[in-house]
Amino acid sequence: MRIPLPNLRDLVVDILVAVDVLPEHAETTATRLTEADLRGRSGHGVIRVPYYVTRIEAGGLNLRPDVRITRSTPVSGLVDGDNGLGQVVMTVATETAIAKAEDAGMAWVGTVRSNHAGAAGVYTEIAASQGFIAMYMAVASANVMPPWGGEDRLLGTNPISIAIPGEGASEFHLDIATTVASHGTIKVLAQRGEDMPQGWVVGLDGVPITDPKRADEGLLVPIGGYKGAGLNMAIGLLAGTLNGAAFGSEVIDHRAIPDQAANTGQAIFVMRPDLFREVDDLRSAVGAALTEMRGSGPSGAVHIPGDAAKRSRDEQMREGVELSDQVADDLASLARRLGVDHPLS
Amino acid sequence: MRIPLPNLRDLVVDILVAVDVLPEHAETTATRLTEADLRGRSGHGVIRVPYYVTRIEAGGLNLRPDVRITRSTPVSGLVDGDNGLGQVVMTVATETAIAKAEDAGMAWVGTVRSNHAGAAGVYTEIAASQGFIAMYMAVASANVMPPWGGEDRLLGTNPISIAIPGEGASEFHLDIATTVASHGTIKVLAQRGEDMPQGWVVGLDGVPITDPKRADEGLLVPIGGYKGAGLNMAIGLLAGTLNGAAFGSEVIDHRAIPDQAANTGQAIFVMRPDLFREVDDLRSAVGAALTEMRGSGPSGAVHIPGDAAKRSRDEQMREGVELSDQVADDLASLARRLGVDHPLS
Repeated sequence: MRIPLPNLRDLVVDILVAVDVLPEHAETTATRLTEADLRGRSGHGVIRVPYYVTRIEAGGLNLRPDVRITRSTPVSGLVDGDNGLGQVVMTVATETAIAKAEDAGMAWVGTVRSNHAGAAGVYTEIAASQGFIAMYMAVASANVMPPWGGEDRLLGTNPISIAIPGEGASEFHLDIATTVASHGTIKVLAQRGEDMPQGWVVGLDGVPITDPKRADEGLLVPIGGYKGAGLNMAIGLLAGTLNGAAFGSEVIDHRAIPDQAANTGQAIFVMRPDLFREVDDLRSAVGAALTEMRGSGPSGAVHIPGDAAKRSRDEQMREGVELSDQVADDLASLARRLGVDHPLS
Repeated sequence: MRIPLPNLRDLVVDILVAVDVLPEHAETTATRLTEADLRGRSGHGVIRVPYYVTRIEAGGLNLRPDVRITRSTPVSGLVDGDNGLGQVVMTVATETAIAKAEDAGMAWVGTVRSNHAGAAGVYTEIAASQGFIAMYMAVASANVMPPWGGEDRLLGTNPISIAIPGEGASEFHLDIATTVASHGTIKVLAQRGEDMPQGWVVGLDGVPITDPKRADEGLLVPIGGYKGAGLNMAIGLLAGTLNGAAFGSEVIDHRAIPDQAANTGQAIFVMRPDLFREVDDLRSAVGAALTEMRGSGPSGAVHIPGDAAKRSRDEQMREGVELSDQVADDLASLARRLGVDHPLS
């Protein structure tokens, strides 16, 4: 079904406020979640609301967090999220990084005691839409695979996003998990009742698992074997360990253990492109490079990071946000239980 | 065969000086190339000397470059390499980034009009050995694959290296091409007469190529399909386009076209870890995380980025640098032709 963006956002706000989230925090969280849906990252969109409510009702999240910057230089900041909603913490971190980069040229801001913050590209987009280069990394909120050659689940899907302004606001926009499949993507297939391709998840017996409902029994596979596993580990160290946040066995599955603080870590790096060349010059050079890449195959066939998100966003802003029946049902029943009016029939 | 490091380095210096490279530039280049061999990156080590000499003799490199910083802020620099040897240009860039990061907390330095600079990890190691976090990216010196879904060779092996201090100087040290195989690795197999595994190179007809001597007929494969292709493109834009250096069809194959300037671009980012937590604290936390990762499988089986390079380096410092017969023969005949004394019999 389709639902206009403002109605969906209001519904998420109302649900969160009904479980005692501060209205301002509910607004921020709803904006980031629906932005993920708009960008086609529905695995990190409003599908997550029921999980968040479960964590909130279990006492796993702090609804009155004192989100504050505990270490600060002109080019850096460490945001202690005080176990608040991840979207709230990461929005503070992103805005801090942008303000510092505006003045100093670049800034790296990390988070500690944060929570699941949704789609990586949502944060780089905030910076990119203001003309900055941005990179985001996060320790994912559950461990799904061992280090390369190991046996214990110590690594998550640890995503990275890189946005670079082009002739559009953020013409190049990478947003990837460093596993072949992200948890969110698997969740979407499970809800649709579709199979996963081989190569996404391998059973402990080495046999591929293609039923997305059975994905938790197996191990996710890193992109590029030891290379992706290494990149995944770098992200874990830079977004987690560097900030004093969880990494490795310190990471708890935020859905399986809803009543405990997760100590999630994220990092965002923001840089002014005019440190290196004039902005107009850069924009047209990036635009030309991407046009060349797009032209290297049949029309529409070449994958340019960000193109699909932009198409999805334009289409859903116009036609309404697309929700699967399952997500719509889950949100509707959650709304009913909490006594919230909802537009989902 | 084995050759002690000082003798190998002297030989490379003598060869480069014999073709009119400034002694100081020859020293820098020889140090970086042999460091790649020490780290087990022999595809980017002294195996490259004959190619460099070919480029020098063809007039493709400027042997008296005016390497200078053309844009500068406290946190950034753009180094115009004036078509000098890549190792010389990138050493200036790395030292500039370290000095700025020491003062300002972090710095990003890009290069333009540079050249092939060898193994990525060699530059992050310079910063990491001084206690910094470092990230390096480069536009590779030949295009070997199309964008995902495209048909024209517009992307190289664009490598990335990330080093993070641990209980050792740079305990975590990622150094990867964003293709499944790097050009250097393929070159090493070709010289050894060994086959490539399937999945490294695909022919234009879609059939895997396993003979490394035929690799140039085919296309390299990115790690993780569209994800690695996207990361590869991000590196190209950040290390190339952002600096005004070549990317896409502007990249020339520096071996096939030895007489033209390549306008290679690189970027290095250096950051003080004490922006986020006390250094001793970080070192022991990184050390503990990696110890946990190493312990997640049989002893020696778990791949931790940097471990193999450290083992290789220790062993070759002790036993001498290992050269294949082919590389030793090539260097010996080059030395003879240039009238340079050599220790390779």
